[in-house]
Amino acid sequence: MIKIALLGYGTIGSGVAEVLDINHDSIAKKAGEEIAVKYILDLRDFPGDKNENKIVHDYEIIVNDPEISVVVEAMGGVEPAYTFVKRALLAGKHVATSNKALVAKHGPKLLQIARERQINFLFEASVGGGIPIIRPLISCLTADVVEEITGILNGTTNYMMTKMSEEGSEFADVLKDAQQKGYAEADPTADVEGHDACRKIAILTSLVAGSQVDFEDIHCEGITKISAADIKYAKAMGKNIKLLASSRMVDGGYSAIVAPFLLDDAHPLYNVHDVFNAVFVHGNVLGDAMFYGSGAGKLPTASAVVADIVDIVKHIDKNIVIFWDEKKLTLKDYKDVAYKFFVRAAADKDAIEAAFGTVSYVEVPEIAGETAFVTEPMSGKVYEEAAAKVSGMINMIRVD
Amino acid sequence: MIKIALLGYGTIGSGVAEVLDINHDSIAKKAGEEIAVKYILDLRDFPGDKNENKIVHDYEIIVNDPEISVVVEAMGGVEPAYTFVKRALLAGKHVATSNKALVAKHGPKLLQIARERQINFLFEASVGGGIPIIRPLISCLTADVVEEITGILNGTTNYMMTKMSEEGSEFADVLKDAQQKGYAEADPTADVEGHDACRKIAILTSLVAGSQVDFEDIHCEGITKISAADIKYAKAMGKNIKLLASSRMVDGGYSAIVAPFLLDDAHPLYNVHDVFNAVFVHGNVLGDAMFYGSGAGKLPTASAVVADIVDIVKHIDKNIVIFWDEKKLTLKDYKDVAYKFFVRAAADKDAIEAAFGTVSYVEVPEIAGETAFVTEPMSGKVYEEAAAKVSGMINMIRVD
Repeated sequence: MIKIALLGYGTIGSGVAEVLDINHDSIAKKAGEEIAVKYILDLRDFPGDKNENKIVHDYEIIVNDPEISVVVEAMGGVEPAYTFVKRALLAGKHVATSNKALVAKHGPKLLQIARERQINFLFEASVGGGIPIIRPLISCLTADVVEEITGILNGTTNYMMTKMSEEGSEFADVLKDAQQKGYAEADPTADVEGHDACRKIAILTSLVAGSQVDFEDIHCEGITKISAADIKYAKAMGKNIKLLASSRMVDGGYSAIVAPFLLDDAHPLYNVHDVFNAVFVHGNVLGDAMFYGSGAGKLPTASAVVADIVDIVKHIDKNIVIFWDEKKLTLKDYKDVAYKFFVRAAADKDAIEAAFGTVSYVEVPEIAGETAFVTEPMSGKVYEEAAAKVSGMINMIRVD
Repeated sequence: MIKIALLGYGTIGSGVAEVLDINHDSIAKKAGEEIAVKYILDLRDFPGDKNENKIVHDYEIIVNDPEISVVVEAMGGVEPAYTFVKRALLAGKHVATSNKALVAKHGPKLLQIARERQINFLFEASVGGGIPIIRPLISCLTADVVEEITGILNGTTNYMMTKMSEEGSEFADVLKDAQQKGYAEADPTADVEGHDACRKIAILTSLVAGSQVDFEDIHCEGITKISAADIKYAKAMGKNIKLLASSRMVDGGYSAIVAPFLLDDAHPLYNVHDVFNAVFVHGNVLGDAMFYGSGAGKLPTASAVVADIVDIVKHIDKNIVIFWDEKKLTLKDYKDVAYKFFVRAAADKDAIEAAFGTVSYVEVPEIAGETAFVTEPMSGKVYEEAAAKVSGMINMIRVD
């Protein structure tokens, strides 16, 4: 019998308790041991809840109980999560977490402590919710040098882009709809400005590169500038607009970006709609692969956390090696990566071609007073020089 | 330094040597040890090949060399692969294989020997080529009861269905094209009759159920009856026809089938084209997930084999537990599963409705002399009773 403690009894923490309950027998069989929740740390009480007698308010009870071999952190945020997780590891307790902020900021330090003690720090649920992506990267794609990893990593914005595409509506309207449905928060900044996706691609890039990528170093554009007119042009080109978080190998290093992209229907991420997430990987020998599923939600995320717990129980005396040095990786300049650029400008074709050279024009009958076009592939630097020469620029979206 | 032997220097065996060479340093880092090929067993010699001095013709050299800790089986077929693999395991050598016929037939026996000796028998490449699916099933979806696993598991037939859909051509023509491109063999039976996909879904179902599923027990229909007319109807309905290999949980057991299915564009497998493979999984807590990638090909398949080798090196003293008993699982009758059925019959609407009840008709202007329709969901048994009442049945395709 493995006894565990949950830190936090919110959506994910209670989901973990629920999954351990629903699939109790099959989980025990796969782990080789029964798994029981002994404590749940939360500031609140939960009178009437089936786990109400497991609630504790003092972390010392958990960290000092030698019966607890696994701590599940589902509090979110960097502190006090970091202090609690670090103390658990130092006390020889394995940790599973769903906390992307914690992992993005302190992942390598916590992995190092786990490695030194031959225990485990796992975080499958921190990226892509229920989609298995961290473990496949660590244990399945080991024969490859990953040359690109690109994800739709935020369900809220993907829902919004899907709605805008289906209904032709404006950003402000779909945001209101997403807030009403509970998909977007009252302050939607972290989602719509791409900050959430940015932390996730920082984690994935760190794992791919084996060194710390600070999310603050990643160029990040959200979806707030995407309008119904952009969607109309996308449709005219047979493309979808998706908020991508992407890292590519450039000159032996990695360049990372979070931004809206135009994808055509041959791209594996083209058809990832609503709140679903997906991660596309290109390996130098594997070629293209994609992992798709529920990127958020109580039970899918808890499913990933519980899979970590099972893996911990199967490796109770062995550290699962995860390469992620504390040494900071300096990213290559995202402006050195070449894309085609879709551009809308209140300018005439002569001015556009003088600045951008050969372009392909896109026309939408009901939009007048502007010229829309797609450039040839060029680096971000070359694009910016060209764009500076054209007055009346309206919007730009990269084409993948 | 880990020394390995390759059994077979054909497409996959030589691919394994190539991947170990191309990504030598990154693989050594991830495995924690350098990996070197010491022997390659093949009947042929390879004069001028960079590995020509590693070729041996006698298996005894390999099985009796204590320096060899990992044997990679890439010969294909059940014998002599089974004898060689079994002897390697009995001699305490780990084994990785890409051989679906071997795994489908003798998987549980070989896993048992590996378990008893605390070594490993891994077979990621036996299903879905380079797509990580076996390891995710074993180590990522452990929190879930898998209620459905459905794959596009044969690249040849998926290429053919894609071509038929794109070009409106007939089965015989695309088969010829696939043979010319080297995607289909001179005798295409194993692909087009679904036998290849059948072995793969037998392996996946065995892993999901934890017991031996014999592929001979799985109802298997190929794509040979699919015509250009069927594709026209599919397009009229906004659907694609795909050869699916699928297992579903029914009454606490599993029912399995290989057959062409009509998928609409909301299905994650709808957009899997050409030689790509994908596996869709529905877990009771995870919900929907999908794994997509190159289902065949030298380097993608070798990538999966090498990932197994790396996992073996990381678990050199520890058996990775894979639940798959020799005890045979009796499958539920596939005719008990309910689908909608798309039907073409040279019959009038009165006769059709008398037999099938309410149906939705599908019309394609250029096809005359027949009636096409989609039934309400019904079990295969109910469908067969209804179909027996209608004379002039032309074709039936299930709708997923």
